[in-house]
Amino acid sequence: MSVQQYRPPLKYAMVGGGSGSFIGAVHRKAAALDGRAELVAGALSSTPERSLASAREIGLDESRSYASWEELIERESARPEGERPDFVSIVTPNDTHYPVAKAALGAGLHVVCDKPFTHTVEQAAELRDLAAGKNLVCCVTYNYSGYPMVREASELVRTGALGPIRKVHVEYHQGWLATRLEETGMKQAAWRTDPKRAGLGGALGDIGTHAEQLMRFVTGLEIDTLCADCTSFVEGRALDDDASVLLRFAERDGVRAKGVMPVSQVCTGEGNPLTLRVYGERGGLRWKQETPETITLLSVDSDPRTLSRGNDTLSDRAQRATRLPGGHPEGFIEAFANIYLGAIEAIELAKAGRPVPPASLAAEIPQAQDGLEGVRFVERCVSSDGAWVSLDA
Amino acid sequence: MSVQQYRPPLKYAMVGGGSGSFIGAVHRKAAALDGRAELVAGALSSTPERSLASAREIGLDESRSYASWEELIERESARPEGERPDFVSIVTPNDTHYPVAKAALGAGLHVVCDKPFTHTVEQAAELRDLAAGKNLVCCVTYNYSGYPMVREASELVRTGALGPIRKVHVEYHQGWLATRLEETGMKQAAWRTDPKRAGLGGALGDIGTHAEQLMRFVTGLEIDTLCADCTSFVEGRALDDDASVLLRFAERDGVRAKGVMPVSQVCTGEGNPLTLRVYGERGGLRWKQETPETITLLSVDSDPRTLSRGNDTLSDRAQRATRLPGGHPEGFIEAFANIYLGAIEAIELAKAGRPVPPASLAAEIPQAQDGLEGVRFVERCVSSDGAWVSLDA
Amino acid sequence: MSVQQYRPPLKYAMVGGGSGSFIGAVHRKAAALDGRAELVAGALSSTPERSLASAREIGLDESRSYASWEELIERESARPEGERPDFVSIVTPNDTHYPVAKAALGAGLHVVCDKPFTHTVEQAAELRDLAAGKNLVCCVTYNYSGYPMVREASELVRTGALGPIRKVHVEYHQGWLATRLEETGMKQAAWRTDPKRAGLGGALGDIGTHAEQLMRFVTGLEIDTLCADCTSFVEGRALDDDASVLLRFAERDGVRAKGVMPVSQVCTGEGNPLTLRVYGERGGLRWKQETPETITLLSVDSDPRTLSRGNDTLSDRAQRATRLPGGHPEGFIEAFANIYLGAIEAIELAKAGRPVPPASLAAEIPQAQDGLEGVRFVERCVSSDGAWVSLDA
Amino acid sequence: MSVQQYRPPLKYAMVGGGSGSFIGAVHRKAAALDGRAELVAGALSSTPERSLASAREIGLDESRSYASWEELIERESARPEGERPDFVSIVTPNDTHYPVAKAALGAGLHVVCDKPFTHTVEQAAELRDLAAGKNLVCCVTYNYSGYPMVREASELVRTGALGPIRKVHVEYHQGWLATRLEETGMKQAAWRTDPKRAGLGGALGDIGTHAEQLMRFVTGLEIDTLCADCTSFVEGRALDDDASVLLRFAERDGVRAKGVMPVSQVCTGEGNPLTLRVYGERGGLRWKQETPETITLLSVDSDPRTLSRGNDTLSDRAQRATRLPGGHPEGFIEAFANIYLGAIEAIELAKAGRPVPPASLAAEIPQAQDGLEGVRFVERCVSSDGAWVSLDA
Repeated sequence: MSVQQYRPPLKYAMVGGGSGSFIGAVHRKAAALDGRAELVAGALSSTPERSLASAREIGLDESRSYASWEELIERESARPEGERPDFVSIVTPNDTHYPVAKAALGAGLHVVCDKPFTHTVEQAAELRDLAAGKNLVCCVTYNYSGYPMVREASELVRTGALGPIRKVHVEYHQGWLATRLEETGMKQAAWRTDPKRAGLGGALGDIGTHAEQLMRFVTGLEIDTLCADCTSFVEGRALDDDASVLLRFAERDGVRAKGVMPVSQVCTGEGNPLTLRVYGERGGLRWKQETPETITLLSVDSDPRTLSRGNDTLSDRAQRATRLPGGHPEGFIEAFANIYLGAIEAIELAKAGRPVPPASLAAEIPQAQDGLEGVRFVERCVSSDGAWVSLDA
Repeated sequence: MSVQQYRPPLKYAMVGGGSGSFIGAVHRKAAALDGRAELVAGALSSTPERSLASAREIGLDESRSYASWEELIERESARPEGERPDFVSIVTPNDTHYPVAKAALGAGLHVVCDKPFTHTVEQAAELRDLAAGKNLVCCVTYNYSGYPMVREASELVRTGALGPIRKVHVEYHQGWLATRLEETGMKQAAWRTDPKRAGLGGALGDIGTHAEQLMRFVTGLEIDTLCADCTSFVEGRALDDDASVLLRFAERDGVRAKGVMPVSQVCTGEGNPLTLRVYGERGGLRWKQETPETITLLSVDSDPRTLSRGNDTLSDRAQRATRLPGGHPEGFIEAFANIYLGAIEAIELAKAGRPVPPASLAAEIPQAQDGLEGVRFVERCVSSDGAWVSLDA
Repeated sequence: MSVQQYRPPLKYAMVGGGSGSFIGAVHRKAAALDGRAELVAGALSSTPERSLASAREIGLDESRSYASWEELIERESARPEGERPDFVSIVTPNDTHYPVAKAALGAGLHVVCDKPFTHTVEQAAELRDLAAGKNLVCCVTYNYSGYPMVREASELVRTGALGPIRKVHVEYHQGWLATRLEETGMKQAAWRTDPKRAGLGGALGDIGTHAEQLMRFVTGLEIDTLCADCTSFVEGRALDDDASVLLRFAERDGVRAKGVMPVSQVCTGEGNPLTLRVYGERGGLRWKQETPETITLLSVDSDPRTLSRGNDTLSDRAQRATRLPGGHPEGFIEAFANIYLGAIEAIELAKAGRPVPPASLAAEIPQAQDGLEGVRFVERCVSSDGAWVSLDA
Repeated sequence: MSVQQYRPPLKYAMVGGGSGSFIGAVHRKAAALDGRAELVAGALSSTPERSLASAREIGLDESRSYASWEELIERESARPEGERPDFVSIVTPNDTHYPVAKAALGAGLHVVCDKPFTHTVEQAAELRDLAAGKNLVCCVTYNYSGYPMVREASELVRTGALGPIRKVHVEYHQGWLATRLEETGMKQAAWRTDPKRAGLGGALGDIGTHAEQLMRFVTGLEIDTLCADCTSFVEGRALDDDASVLLRFAERDGVRAKGVMPVSQVCTGEGNPLTLRVYGERGGLRWKQETPETITLLSVDSDPRTLSRGNDTLSDRAQRATRLPGGHPEGFIEAFANIYLGAIEAIELAKAGRPVPPASLAAEIPQAQDGLEGVRFVERCVSSDGAWVSLDA
């Protein structure tokens, strides 16, 4: 909650996020919360009419509302410095992430892209290399790592509070796809269950990638091999709606940790309980997205402690991600906004001629390499078919 | 989560809210979240230098940063329509609410004012009448009634889901003033414990008014008489830091309900657990600010149910106050933003020549009359001195 | 969980506790759990036929099943040493506690009596003095102080972990009497709402006495004055079914603590949540009967800790009251059994010619003086009628 | 809580359970709680001296305290009807379950045996057949299925409240063996980590068998194949202290359900959270051993409900297993006692010349076949070595 030097907001354009989009509105509110980004252009929907209608709905200047993302990038990137968007937010279904990001980066625009990043590892690598070659930010919005207490968890592991890690349990048990919602005309369900749009993974792509990144962000562990049992429980569904994954990690601190990762969208009646538990030789921790303000910290030799966001005993990393005192709940949008803040700070560095920070824990910005890890994770899970496979294929 | 017709943001000026202010930043973020209000001017601090420094910190146009609130109101209200602020947000310590609001309303500007509203009931009544006479909005930011699940609670009572109400328990148990924080240079503690700035009530004014309004908002009950036992536990403190209040309500539905309201800022180790429980002849409910996303609904003849924000079984009132699906936590800023949205909608009505909605439940906008109720509540508690007193004095 | 020297079980007789009695079965199971008491005689019901039927139901020797408590005491106390019951458990409705206890003590038998103890303070004092004069135990089964974590709470306060106590909040919010259950033929409701059987207090006597004793047991504070607002919400009910009590305590450690005690049996939908919160200058604690295995320990300068029964960091007092490792839930019967163990140990002392321990915290045995405090508390609450009254009348 | 016809207690002998045994005392208290079983003989420890000392400690008749279990069975089974024990409780480490049970059954005595049942499936089958051939009860104390709310969960699945089951998540995350406790002289740790005494499984045998039986008891699903990743994290440990198991169930109701079962004794800081979650097409449920009094019942189309023990809306199966009204916590010993009650009722049937109920859900008595399933489960997990194996080998 320290005083910050004012910097004028960056300008951004949005691709996707028209009427009825859940995540587009989240991106806009997250970007608006701290006054650090201003929406100046958009290709908000897949048809010119709907794009325009969506633009009117949110008050976007009609002259900067485009009928297609190709047009948006072509024309906006041609604007003079100072008018041109600094970055493009891509909030379309998964299948268009790659071409839009490629075009935006190609035009010299930074990118903030929803997850899962791309359909293939090769696409992700191409975008990563393209961004790196031009010193552009390509942030992938793994928003759950924006929670202050997730950053505290990461710091607890990093500083050895738990000792060498032995066991990680990360689960994501949604229930909203327990019925054939995709046949009711509900857009969110329709594209997520369509292989052409969603890619290789169903639940794995949509939420398994969050679980994978959360685990990696907090523990820093690298998956060595995995064994995944994927299922489509709802009749007629082409993609997995449930997956149970066993993980074996590369050795660290002399320990070869193991992990369990069940993800499901057919856990009937569940909301959005992404839950992480990490156990080391000296302690453990528990965090749950639906009550994101606290961590339970366990120890081999003392009573469990409840760490709360806003408490001044927390690490700098957690405190920097905090807007309100403890007891005044922060939530999903604030966490999302923290991802945006990270991207914005990196873009400002790049604009100042300095290198974009690497995709590492310290930078707190999930980037193309993180997006690639998620895509690779899904690919390997799907190809596992119940057998152990190496992450590196 | 319905589609809304776009309306351009209102313009507002802020009085108070400079560097180090907690609540000023909250107001700004709440106003920014939905893109419906734009800060255009400010008198952010009590000295010209600090006001300017604060303006720079948040990127406010320096030419519209004023050295005093008097200057701000004089010069901003003289601007032409279209440039002039629609409303003034007052986020100063309590003692200046009255003069600033009076001047702003006098100049024809709508007002959004922090609570407790004024130092005296007479001041509150004057502001109420002034606003009414000019068809101006004078919103008091009782932010906790902005939570969707608080609105659901209100609707559950209103529609009779609990039956006639018998017992209300509302408590607000903070711990942050358990030590003499006011002597450490901490501004927040200093003015809240200073009768000149805070007014008659310490904990009563700061958080008792929240508890009173929450109770009234949800139950609609009117206090008939009350008995308050106020204490200053921390040595040298002039105002109460703890109060225990018994309530007897006016008859409704044939029942004379009763209430218990403990408020304290010396419950060592507690954060911000404003908690409400309401029991009627057929059911009960529990809500807690620190986990604001759910209500537990109790019934005389069935199992407890957990109602969650985002669930489509909730009332329209709750759903209108919702931005995200269930399981994606909303928090304090979102609730605060709902108060702003209510005020903004009322201001738009007034600008369109229609009457400002009355201060009633249906309007969802806490206004000057609600502010007055809070001030009266504090006055009567302080004068009770352990005896039963009528609310009407 | 230390090894104990075996001692043969004491023998006891039971008055009350026949078919359909809830509490009689609890007493018998609590006494049986540790193998330290053996039921040898009974006058289990109010008519000879039902007494005999109840005796058969539980396998009591029919020759020692009596038609009346008078007969039981007369004939059992005349048996030779070694056959004679060591103590009498009194589990009748409140109105007969006094005559039965008086007769039992008069006959030289120790007494274990349910609460509330008697109808009047004078009766309680008489029993106390009678027991003291004969060095007999007269234990009153305030079972909630038998929970290990309640003893830990008491020890935390006693050893100063919280600092001088400022505020106590103890509440007991049941809902089972929210309707006129007494007219449905349900015995438990019928006698509790009948002044002739229950005494002066309804909810106050039945559960307010538990709240009062829990508060006193944990904090050791003495009530100086109180202000009680008692209500009979359910039509036609002669006794209170709801009471809200403000407490002012005698000075201790330089602080005059205050308390709030709402008790109710019309909190529709609530189960049995007796809940205690204590706040001192340096810390606070929370305990709830429905989840009795943990205490949350709050501190002015560190994170909340969760203390759990079975943990070896707990005090000896808590550990002595523990039978199982942590994580293996103990409950109501175990707590009740701890009260029995305390009484049995005191009776063994008396049988060995040593003095019965005084009614003090250290002894962990609630005795006649504690029973008297409860009766006095009810009397003063009822006579308060909303005004402050001294506990000492 | 219905009135029951009195029946005199059965007599039993205990093998194992001497000084320092945790589980022996649990068995004795569980048997004592309801007054339906009386301990008459014992071979409590592995040496004559310690056996005698242990007998004295608990007040067992020294003439019926034996130096060895062989002697106990030989001499006690030779006693006349009416003196002879009805059954033998076996509470030794795992390695002696088989020979003791075989001898007891061979001598015509019923058996109550701790789990895991035997070292091999063949031993388990032999005991099962021996018991069946003589119409003797051979109960295996899978105590967690004694909880009323576990029985409610089973009934909810059985009656279709959740619809066809898709996914089961059962986890058992202890932390007590996170360090080399076995080298500190702690008996409990020493034998559980010693393959000679514990058998093939470490955590798998000690707690994995509980998880397997809980899952089977509640869902009735049969494992078709499994894939287990077993680890010994603590250096020098010969048996697994952690195992992650994926389950594929045989088809039922047209669905091939899947399951995830992580069990661990190195989840540092965890207590005893055996946790079950079951998801079907129409609903889900959650239960956790550390708070055993409630189930959360989820539904595809309504709000989550909290079902509580003692509520009269529960099934007969749950109510029959209940001793106290809701809100008066029952725990581990009561659940254990429910297993004993089941065994005792079955033994009474057998004594009356009627057949012992089969090992099925309706009977609520875990028997030799259930013990066998547990042993087979451990065997298959250990032999899986990360690959899918059939349960039937």
